[in-house]
Amino acid sequence: MAAVPLVALLSDFGLRDGYSGVMKGVILGIAPRTPLVDLTHEIPPQDVRTAAWVLHTSWRSFPQESVFLCVVDPGVGSARHPIALQVEGRYFVGPDNGLFSYPLAEANSADIADTRAVILDNPRYFPATLPSATFHGRDIFAPAAGHLAAGVPLEELGRALAVDALERFALPQPEWRQNALLAHVVHIDHFGNILTDVKGPWAQAVFNAPAPTLAIAGRRITARARTFAEGPADALFVYKDSSGHLAIARRNGSAAAELDLALADMSEQTLTLSDIEPSRE
Amino acid sequence: MAAVPLVALLSDFGLRDGYSGVMKGVILGIAPRTPLVDLTHEIPPQDVRTAAWVLHTSWRSFPQESVFLCVVDPGVGSARHPIALQVEGRYFVGPDNGLFSYPLAEANSADIADTRAVILDNPRYFPATLPSATFHGRDIFAPAAGHLAAGVPLEELGRALAVDALERFALPQPEWRQNALLAHVVHIDHFGNILTDVKGPWAQAVFNAPAPTLAIAGRRITARARTFAEGPADALFVYKDSSGHLAIARRNGSAAAELDLALADMSEQTLTLSDIEPSRE
Amino acid sequence: MAAVPLVALLSDFGLRDGYSGVMKGVILGIAPRTPLVDLTHEIPPQDVRTAAWVLHTSWRSFPQESVFLCVVDPGVGSARHPIALQVEGRYFVGPDNGLFSYPLAEANSADIADTRAVILDNPRYFPATLPSATFHGRDIFAPAAGHLAAGVPLEELGRALAVDALERFALPQPEWRQNALLAHVVHIDHFGNILTDVKGPWAQAVFNAPAPTLAIAGRRITARARTFAEGPADALFVYKDSSGHLAIARRNGSAAAELDLALADMSEQTLTLSDIEPSRE
Repeated sequence: MAAVPLVALLSDFGLRDGYSGVMKGVILGIAPRTPLVDLTHEIPPQDVRTAAWVLHTSWRSFPQESVFLCVVDPGVGSARHPIALQVEGRYFVGPDNGLFSYPLAEANSADIADTRAVILDNPRYFPATLPSATFHGRDIFAPAAGHLAAGVPLEELGRALAVDALERFALPQPEWRQNALLAHVVHIDHFGNILTDVKGPWAQAVFNAPAPTLAIAGRRITARARTFAEGPADALFVYKDSSGHLAIARRNGSAAAELDLALADMSEQTLTLSDIEPSRE
Repeated sequence: MAAVPLVALLSDFGLRDGYSGVMKGVILGIAPRTPLVDLTHEIPPQDVRTAAWVLHTSWRSFPQESVFLCVVDPGVGSARHPIALQVEGRYFVGPDNGLFSYPLAEANSADIADTRAVILDNPRYFPATLPSATFHGRDIFAPAAGHLAAGVPLEELGRALAVDALERFALPQPEWRQNALLAHVVHIDHFGNILTDVKGPWAQAVFNAPAPTLAIAGRRITARARTFAEGPADALFVYKDSSGHLAIARRNGSAAAELDLALADMSEQTLTLSDIEPSRE
Repeated sequence: MAAVPLVALLSDFGLRDGYSGVMKGVILGIAPRTPLVDLTHEIPPQDVRTAAWVLHTSWRSFPQESVFLCVVDPGVGSARHPIALQVEGRYFVGPDNGLFSYPLAEANSADIADTRAVILDNPRYFPATLPSATFHGRDIFAPAAGHLAAGVPLEELGRALAVDALERFALPQPEWRQNALLAHVVHIDHFGNILTDVKGPWAQAVFNAPAPTLAIAGRRITARARTFAEGPADALFVYKDSSGHLAIARRNGSAAAELDLALADMSEQTLTLSDIEPSRE
């Protein structure tokens, strides 16, 4: 007997009101043996970009057939489509508002050709008149995830939607300007580590340069380290984070607190990297 | 092979100390395949009313046979009974302190006749001398939930208790006074949405009236919306929440923050609704 | 068919970034039916002592064969060993930094002789070049937990390590000085209860003495109670906590808040117990 696919949940529901528990109750009512995993329910309210980032750094660690139930949905009940899609053997369920921008961009060309999407509108699964206009997590998305976990084919859930028509936002990218790389802060994690959009050859360039100059929020960062333990005791340093991105940390402390930087205002923040060789990516 | 019933957990234990994990360890020691769902562990300490509210808005989304393990228990170790009850095919386990007021009130007359309750006192399952006087979640309630999930009949767990004898508090109800409806705040959720005890025909009356006047905390609310996205950009509005109650929201913001209203002091707060027709419920 | 052993997770990862979810995805990719239990992910960052305490008060409530995946790991990527050990029929996986000090000390002499430990270095399971230097939770520890849950013998995971060689810290112990017992604060829980290292006969001595004198943070505590409900309405009191330790509480309130004591500075704090008989332990 094959294992039932797991459902991983991501939302901005918090943990206080039982909203995520209700979605799980609905899923288990449809597919009683489904393993359930909380990715996070602590996305800042309505913050689709942070939700997309967490999905970006997580989804490839999950096995094939996994279903990601993602509900950060400021447009709930409006014209935005409720969708399900399949990318590289995993399923994604949620509102069509950019949440899935990363998997869609990350699928390689062969796989993206195999990517399929549907609007969740099959009246057999989603009655036209729903119990609520404000909790599609409970009334549309959790049922869709449960049916996928139970083995209902994606195509059954609704009419096909062209993958090109799906909402996506432009993924953050560092820019090369006047002999310097201008990078963006893309996430601040629980430890206060500051993640940037510098990765791959650009991240390597920082470690290859003899004395790169990094500046953020009026501060200079000169130290580089491979691990937290190797970082200096009393200064900010950069390291390559587990998702492959250049990041800023403070050993046994919070880089974000030291720079007085919060998740809410990170989008204003840039990191300038000078004295590095332009990448020949 | 029938699926093992799930156990849904609700407590004021928080997530820091391992208390909820310990209850799960106990359950899985008794019924190893039990699916476990966290409803919430973030009930404010000792706040039986908020716990009851979260249960009210959640329990019907769970499948038949589900077991709700509810531990908000300021009277732990005192004379209050540890109980289990069955309402409309679901089981509820916890202290007899009003936690189950909503399911008991919501069961329809046919079902309430079938409602059964027991005191958890069968010495086979609950030794008279317990390991602790302060953690019945671990020592009584989790074992009871585990045994129910393992298929032990409710009656086995202890002697029957008359349903009429169970603790209940009076459910909050709006009052019609001097041509206005006086409503109460019953919950403030993670998003800062303010939920009231107005529902059914009364809630509909607010949407039917041409120009109802709503007042709370010295503020007037004139906007009404079906969804968050349809709410005004810069003002509080009322909507019908997913549990059917009239609620107050701020689009992409927190109504509670705008009114400086916290869960802890919500019981002081009322909403006055004028210029509506009295409901003919 | 025997039940798959559960994996219980403990970390300082918080719940915002998906880090704990990623570990679960990895485990379920290896052992798809593994029941997963969150012990806590709210350990203060890098606080190995608090993590060890939570494990101390939890692990015996879990069934035999349970796997504890514990990642509080300030030395990630450094010379500290990644290890797995077996104590009294449970498995523990994590960094060798003192996290497992309590189970190692608590195993009785017969069991400790059976205790086995390995370094997680079998190249079959843990390639020498890992994807990351900073997320061994994902790249080493979760795979180890998954393989143990899947039935891979401990010895398979790497070369044996002498139990005597494992890192341990000295467990906190009260000291008898000048006719008084000097106790230490070892934990402050979600409710603000203050737990001390006084237990067993010493804890009993406090309840046996006619009028013991307890002093902490410049305050005197005279009340003793068996349960929270029996505590005085308006004063701090001591009680025996569910783990057997002497603790300080405030009925329907927070003892820690009243004493202005936080988890972060608890290690500075002592409780002096006078007018008790020295224990004849």
